[in-house]
Amino acid sequence: MNNLLVAQSGGPTAAINATLVGVLHGVRASTKVDKVYGAKNGIEGAINDNLIDLNDLIKDTQAMDTLTYTPSSALGSCRYKMKDFHVDEGPYKKIIDTFIKHEIKYFIYIGGNDSMDTVDKLSEYCRINNHDIYIMGGPKTVDNDLNLTDHCPGFGSAAKYIATTISELERDINVYDIPSVTIVEIMGRNAGWLTAASALARVNGGSGPDLIYLCEKAFDYDKFIEDIKGKLAVKSGLIVAVSEGIKDGTGAYVSDSMSSGAVDNFGHKYIAGSARALEQLVREKIGCKVRAVELNLMQRAAAHIASETDITESVMLGLKAFNCVVNKETGKMAAIKRISDDPYQVEFISVPVSEVANHEKIVPLNWITPDGNDVTEEMMAYLRPLIIGETNIKYENGIPKQHKLY
Amino acid sequence: MNNLLVAQSGGPTAAINATLVGVLHGVRASTKVDKVYGAKNGIEGAINDNLIDLNDLIKDTQAMDTLTYTPSSALGSCRYKMKDFHVDEGPYKKIIDTFIKHEIKYFIYIGGNDSMDTVDKLSEYCRINNHDIYIMGGPKTVDNDLNLTDHCPGFGSAAKYIATTISELERDINVYDIPSVTIVEIMGRNAGWLTAASALARVNGGSGPDLIYLCEKAFDYDKFIEDIKGKLAVKSGLIVAVSEGIKDGTGAYVSDSMSSGAVDNFGHKYIAGSARALEQLVREKIGCKVRAVELNLMQRAAAHIASETDITESVMLGLKAFNCVVNKETGKMAAIKRISDDPYQVEFISVPVSEVANHEKIVPLNWITPDGNDVTEEMMAYLRPLIIGETNIKYENGIPKQHKLY
Repeated sequence: MNNLLVAQSGGPTAAINATLVGVLHGVRASTKVDKVYGAKNGIEGAINDNLIDLNDLIKDTQAMDTLTYTPSSALGSCRYKMKDFHVDEGPYKKIIDTFIKHEIKYFIYIGGNDSMDTVDKLSEYCRINNHDIYIMGGPKTVDNDLNLTDHCPGFGSAAKYIATTISELERDINVYDIPSVTIVEIMGRNAGWLTAASALARVNGGSGPDLIYLCEKAFDYDKFIEDIKGKLAVKSGLIVAVSEGIKDGTGAYVSDSMSSGAVDNFGHKYIAGSARALEQLVREKIGCKVRAVELNLMQRAAAHIASETDITESVMLGLKAFNCVVNKETGKMAAIKRISDDPYQVEFISVPVSEVANHEKIVPLNWITPDGNDVTEEMMAYLRPLIIGETNIKYENGIPKQHKLY
Repeated sequence: MNNLLVAQSGGPTAAINATLVGVLHGVRASTKVDKVYGAKNGIEGAINDNLIDLNDLIKDTQAMDTLTYTPSSALGSCRYKMKDFHVDEGPYKKIIDTFIKHEIKYFIYIGGNDSMDTVDKLSEYCRINNHDIYIMGGPKTVDNDLNLTDHCPGFGSAAKYIATTISELERDINVYDIPSVTIVEIMGRNAGWLTAASALARVNGGSGPDLIYLCEKAFDYDKFIEDIKGKLAVKSGLIVAVSEGIKDGTGAYVSDSMSSGAVDNFGHKYIAGSARALEQLVREKIGCKVRAVELNLMQRAAAHIASETDITESVMLGLKAFNCVVNKETGKMAAIKRISDDPYQVEFISVPVSEVANHEKIVPLNWITPDGNDVTEEMMAYLRPLIIGETNIKYENGIPKQHKLY
């Protein structure tokens, strides 16, 4: 038997199940795989022989369609980082036991950096031990920080939610004719791609965020206050987009530095985000109406406003990973190569996973404007195609239908 | 000339422009009105003679359609509370000057409690001074707290966003098999309707919020911790929905009581929401993974996932207000009377605005379960129809189209 195992890992996105469905489409249309299983909670499911039988699912076109638009990882996730097999071979042996027991010849792991590290290590382990097992990675991350792929599944949908939300907030905050500052905190500890995507709120002529601060550039508190004063001089309602991970010139997180003295009734330190910290600063230094808004988990889970481009590409990447793995490619990741921005054209390729794992693709500094408070036209040209199109999501009783696997 | 003036006031919603469009549909299809104007920033626009000419807009079917789905108040808003005319007649005289200058015979004011108070006072002022001017209110509030109407425009769309978001968060937080608590703070200082709407996340079999605390019921910290411990004993990922305005038995806001000792680096008190305060409490008393999520402005501005039922009813209420006012009804508000839950049927009526102004319709205590941590089936039957249907919102370049009036 030549069976296939698929698993998902890392933080959820609105598109990670679309990649799973792409893999399953591959199985369904191919004769190269006999049975297909999912590992529950990522690589931990392979280690602990905790598999889900997906052979009935792939016969159910409706369920597959609903799963495509269901957010988060239907197979569960984990944050398990495998040690080098020279240091701790135990988990590797357990995975191989699971593979042998279920006659798994192909394994596809959908996830981010850590998952690609697992693909790298496990494929290398199989190779040197002459196991007839082939392993491919499928990219996934709202942060868009994976190397060697033009962009990552999940990013476009999060970007569409963020751009839409900022454009809605722009309408909301401008109803009163008084000076106000709304600081929107967007995911990204080290990579500011999602924060940059807030600029897409301008695509139809909206003013979008008036100021944008990415975590790639050292954050200057005085400059920030000057920027806001400058904008308030010509406009009453400001929206400011900031990465959760903005740091000052010393490398200290803005979120930490502002709240260092604050403790609650139990004497515990307050955990404030960067927007909350800057809200306090604006209140202190300017004194106008100011509010912090965190897009929090919603930005990665908002499948109801997923990008059709993102979902379609995510399915294609699953199918690409499938085609690669059954053709005995191993230790690689399916990836997107952009041919052109306009018309938007891409190819699906495979890239060496060793050059993806443990790298982080951050925003190039020359895609941030010289004064550090906006993004350039190169960034806009890169971002624009990624949010195009609305999905065919189905509603039932007023909310989107979802498909659960367990 | 018999001209009509329309204005919007109070906090924005996803449906307040739909009611404006309903008024404009009325003008467009009628011969009783010569010209139509909008007052900018609510009643302040009438006081200060700051009007917007809407006569071109109503000839533009596409613009009217886009405006229907544009969130927030396209005419701007205000928080102006009129004093009794016996105390300060000045603003009343200025409004009448504006009305005379522009030959305004009909005025429709779309808003919440304070706006209905303005309708009440101004119509009474016109009546006793024998002005041939007729004034109607159009209801609006995400809080759903207006008296004499079954529900309020804007509420159903906010409810749909909340239910959808909770169902997406449920997928998100359940990918890891570890104990976790996600506390979602939902708008409502005194009325818990929106928090109750979180239960709609269960309509397709989802578990929805595991616990729901409305501001109508005194919040008991010890009971809260016991509730969570009880749920965690049988389930790993919990979602808890809380009103922003939950208060303890002494009437103190939960948000205030927990953060009373916390100050930032400037010595300023932290402004924490109820969810943030309870996050700290869970961390202290239980110690598991815990996170606060605020739905913040998004819940009232999310036109991209507006309820078709809500938008259609909002348009109808504008049209109803128009029909009433041109038939010389005055000092009344257009309202919804529910005929039945299933099949869902309503009538549009007019009610005395004096019985709406300065009242607040809170959740009946018998629609909260006896243990105070959920809502009853009566509540569910009331809520279910309000989120049904998706709107025909148009996208351009990947984000929803909007129409601006200035």
